Amino acid sequence: MAKKLSETLKFDDKGLIPAVIQDADDGTILMVAYMNKESFELTLKNKKACFYSRSRQKLWLKGESSGNVQKVKEIYVDCDADCVLVKVKQIGDAACHTGFRTCFYRKVESNSLKTKGKPVFDPEKVYKKSK
Amino acid sequence: MAKKLSETLKFDDKGLIPAVIQDADDGTILMVAYMNKESFELTLKNKKACFYSRSRQKLWLKGESSGNVQKVKEIYVDCDADCVLVKVKQIGDAACHTGFRTCFYRKVESNSLKTKGKPVFDPEKVYKKSK
Repeated sequence: MAKKLSETLKFDDKGLIPAVIQDADDGTILMVAYMNKESFELTLKNKKACFYSRSRQKLWLKGESSGNVQKVKEIYVDCDADCVLVKVKQIGDAACHTGFRTCFYRKVESNSLKTKGKPVFDPEKVYKKSK
Repeated sequence: MAKKLSETLKFDDKGLIPAVIQDADDGTILMVAYMNKESFELTLKNKKACFYSRSRQKLWLKGESSGNVQKVKEIYVDCDADCVLVKVKQIGDAACHTGFRTCFYRKVESNSLKTKGKPVFDPEKVYKKSK
């Protein structure tokens, strides 16, 4: 069943579709990532946002390292079926690997980028990196 | 000045970057489209959302046919600088060429797509198509 729905989506020439991740409660855009057919189907099935990492070239269950999974509340498909919108509950309050709540924490002001807000967590601790 | 900012963005191998368009007032995701360097700079300069149409392969000032331009309120750049978020005031209330307020008017339910809401305008009239 889930497979059938994914077949209506128009994946690009790399087999990917952009997914906009929005906080289901307050509408904040948390991040944009990419899904391939398999990660879209896993997202539908498990109700946790799963992507395809272009840099690591593999499936990426959001939160697999940090524990900050995204519980899927609703999924929408756009008019051209080449983009999806996923409304989620973000566990851990932050979606960005930098520790900010949203990946879009830099605002264009006077033709430069200004950081807005403060990180919710310390990435060094969450990802258990050693220096 | 504007040019300098666009040079910090990571356009893909086709020279494009996805732009998420969000209603500045209520947070609705209206659409996702693509910008090249020129359309990003025009958006910054004119404060009206301008894209690059992949199908028509040319610059596309949103609203150039329908009059439904998107007045730019704020622009954010994500952590990887490969996606932008543009908060806008949507003139004419609808962003989608189908007449719906948002391009994301189809919701995944029971593994199929259900249309949500009703069109705000009649595309036949707005785009002056003849049958």
